[in-house]
Amino acid sequence: MSEQLLEALGREIPTDRLVTDVDVVASLSADDAEWAPVGKAAVALRARTEQEVADAVRICADLRVPVVPRGAGTGLSGGANAVDGCLVLDLSRMTAVKEVDADNLVAVVEPGIVNDDLKAILREQGLWYPPDPASAPWSTIGGNVATNAGGLCCVKYGVTRDYVLGMRAVMGGPAGYGNVVRLGRRTAKGVAGYDLTALMVGSEGTLGVVTEVTLRLRPAPRGVPRTIVGAFTSLVDAGRAVAEVTRRGLTPSALELLDHDTLVAVEDWKHLGLEADAEALLLARVDTPGVAGDDEAQGVVDAFETADPVFAVVSTDDQEAETLFAARRLAYPALERLGPVLTEDVCVPRSSLPTMLATLGEIGDRHGVKIGTIAHAGDGNLHPLLITPVGDDAARAAAQEAFEEIIDAALRLGGTVTGEHGVGLLKMDGLRRELDPLSLAVQHGIKSALDPLNIFNPGKVLTA
Amino acid sequence: MSEQLLEALGREIPTDRLVTDVDVVASLSADDAEWAPVGKAAVALRARTEQEVADAVRICADLRVPVVPRGAGTGLSGGANAVDGCLVLDLSRMTAVKEVDADNLVAVVEPGIVNDDLKAILREQGLWYPPDPASAPWSTIGGNVATNAGGLCCVKYGVTRDYVLGMRAVMGGPAGYGNVVRLGRRTAKGVAGYDLTALMVGSEGTLGVVTEVTLRLRPAPRGVPRTIVGAFTSLVDAGRAVAEVTRRGLTPSALELLDHDTLVAVEDWKHLGLEADAEALLLARVDTPGVAGDDEAQGVVDAFETADPVFAVVSTDDQEAETLFAARRLAYPALERLGPVLTEDVCVPRSSLPTMLATLGEIGDRHGVKIGTIAHAGDGNLHPLLITPVGDDAARAAAQEAFEEIIDAALRLGGTVTGEHGVGLLKMDGLRRELDPLSLAVQHGIKSALDPLNIFNPGKVLTA
Repeated sequence: MSEQLLEALGREIPTDRLVTDVDVVASLSADDAEWAPVGKAAVALRARTEQEVADAVRICADLRVPVVPRGAGTGLSGGANAVDGCLVLDLSRMTAVKEVDADNLVAVVEPGIVNDDLKAILREQGLWYPPDPASAPWSTIGGNVATNAGGLCCVKYGVTRDYVLGMRAVMGGPAGYGNVVRLGRRTAKGVAGYDLTALMVGSEGTLGVVTEVTLRLRPAPRGVPRTIVGAFTSLVDAGRAVAEVTRRGLTPSALELLDHDTLVAVEDWKHLGLEADAEALLLARVDTPGVAGDDEAQGVVDAFETADPVFAVVSTDDQEAETLFAARRLAYPALERLGPVLTEDVCVPRSSLPTMLATLGEIGDRHGVKIGTIAHAGDGNLHPLLITPVGDDAARAAAQEAFEEIIDAALRLGGTVTGEHGVGLLKMDGLRRELDPLSLAVQHGIKSALDPLNIFNPGKVLTA
Repeated sequence: MSEQLLEALGREIPTDRLVTDVDVVASLSADDAEWAPVGKAAVALRARTEQEVADAVRICADLRVPVVPRGAGTGLSGGANAVDGCLVLDLSRMTAVKEVDADNLVAVVEPGIVNDDLKAILREQGLWYPPDPASAPWSTIGGNVATNAGGLCCVKYGVTRDYVLGMRAVMGGPAGYGNVVRLGRRTAKGVAGYDLTALMVGSEGTLGVVTEVTLRLRPAPRGVPRTIVGAFTSLVDAGRAVAEVTRRGLTPSALELLDHDTLVAVEDWKHLGLEADAEALLLARVDTPGVAGDDEAQGVVDAFETADPVFAVVSTDDQEAETLFAARRLAYPALERLGPVLTEDVCVPRSSLPTMLATLGEIGDRHGVKIGTIAHAGDGNLHPLLITPVGDDAARAAAQEAFEEIIDAALRLGGTVTGEHGVGLLKMDGLRRELDPLSLAVQHGIKSALDPLNIFNPGKVLTA
């Protein structure tokens, strides 16, 4: 099959795009979800054009070969992991910015462009694409679209789906495998038929391969944001402070939490001079301009004060503020240094944050699992990172149990198994526990209708 | 069939919910799209509970009777118009606010609650549900969800889809006809499977019947908005002013346009003392608090000034400002007084607004059709209202031609046939012209998968 696939691809697609070297294929066969299983791909294609993507999908459909699309491979749920015998379709070389329309606040880009690279190009024109996953320096827009990536600023500015107006995608089923479909629009509003764009965003490559994205932009923010820092003697106090911010109707442009283990891990690695004694640090940002912004920043301090902080202040030192947010961005790699990380992505109603944080501590203690927690606290989106020593099978089993219990606890609080990382492989079981069985049946109905051959990233998100 | 349907419904549903009186059924058989065809319904059901909706759908599926859901009937595309032999499923009596969760900025409501009624209840708790279609005093949340309604403030705050976190709906197909499906979530973020909630919003009752909606709320706005008024000697100048507002990165919370005919129609009716001499009036609102808001309001004035206005000022008189926005809300009924109105809802990229406005004038002149234009100008969403004298068939034919030409002109500019009213019956042909045929095929694929019996509002949006 591998031979036949290669031959068919070679007839249509320049052979320098095809990767058959086993080690290179393997390096393109997994994302950053260290615990997710990885299959053995038949071949990888580093596509340069939409036509190459279309040809590849058509050929794979003919041969019933699974297609696993990938961007930079920074995913944390295994969504981009190879399945046996698949074609890995690497889109990271399709990086063109086809159009920036400043008058209409629209950009049209290829999926492989890196989030921060796009931001830099837009900044020169006074424009802004808000979604800012912590992976923004490396992750691609296509990957962000596939997982409906969130980030720090979505507490105020929304997630990827809120910025995708339209797209081109190579789809199958009713569109015919290997055909390019135009979805969505480029106007500010539109209700012409079902919102297929919103359906594709977050579908993790299971309904087709996105080859172009039309993005909604914002004017670049004006003025200087304020940073508010709060240190707490317990995670639960920090959770109370966050709940109070929401309750008071404040809308910071970021509201992040780092726990003690995370602070220590970052500090041990980078020596930034963090408040590593605290059990929890909250970092908020307020970008409202002028006096109203000053008032809002003070409002966040006041909300923090209700939860008995060690301190809560508006930072007056730009460098300090920058260091704190740098620490937030470094949290994941800092914890990864300590051992393989099993990443949670649960999201709970914001008022349940104190309860959820207390539960995390309880679960970690009971299973003897080290849990470093970072959180987009303002959204109720928690990333407990379960860390196990390399090669310790008992610890690994304990972590797996803790992982499942955390998901159940989040679901009991009215939460979801995944706030922004996607289902991929790691959250498939959680998804089944979260969704109403009938809703799951509808999900399957859509997958069957749009990919009847089940070749688009099969075995991800939904079970066959 | 009608007998059999009535009998079956009568076995499951309290008979006082059923309406068989021909005149009453007829009164429930059409929305406000005066030009759209209306079929003859078999019977109407004024549902009070989700169970009644579920029973009705199950029975209709068994008997292959079409189900046409409706709220207040304020739609402008014929989406709620009866089809022959259907059950009209009136949800306007399901008006409960089941929950207001101020801590998490979430409300759970039944579909029949009127938009403004919900707003009033939320205001008491310092909360806000932003979407504000001009029909807000009458239209229901369920209807707003069905059409993904927009409104005045969506230029800054987004449309209905942006505020729907989840729902309960009676669906069919993979879920089984007559079963209630829970979709979506109540957390701030979530990517657990395909976004079926976004798919249902704007699907105009063709995929199921929404029985409960979980809405995202915002804190009530603080401070007093400023109103900016600009009068222009041509529609094109007004369009240039709007394009300049966007180009400068300003984000007013409303940016509305009224043309001369509209101003005259409102003034003749209500005698508000409007600037009825102007060829076009722009109304903007800025709700940014404090000095930054003052600056932004002045920025809007400055942008208006670049387009040679008669005048452009920040209104200093609250009553004047209120009157101007009242005039905007009264525009549609004022024009309706002049004759049957054929309502356009095209949306173009904002920079194309001057061209589109010029084209409207040209089309109206060429066909001898009176066109009153109101527009959510800041979104590029235009409502040219084509008015014909009662009983003048030639004028009606001319208006129909002008209607189609306006759609084609919008599509040529990269626009859409419907910004916020939905496709219903009136824009079905336009939808076919707008969408990529393959995209249309995918739309049909979804409809077939989720409603294989084609009983949910058949013959709307997509042709059979």
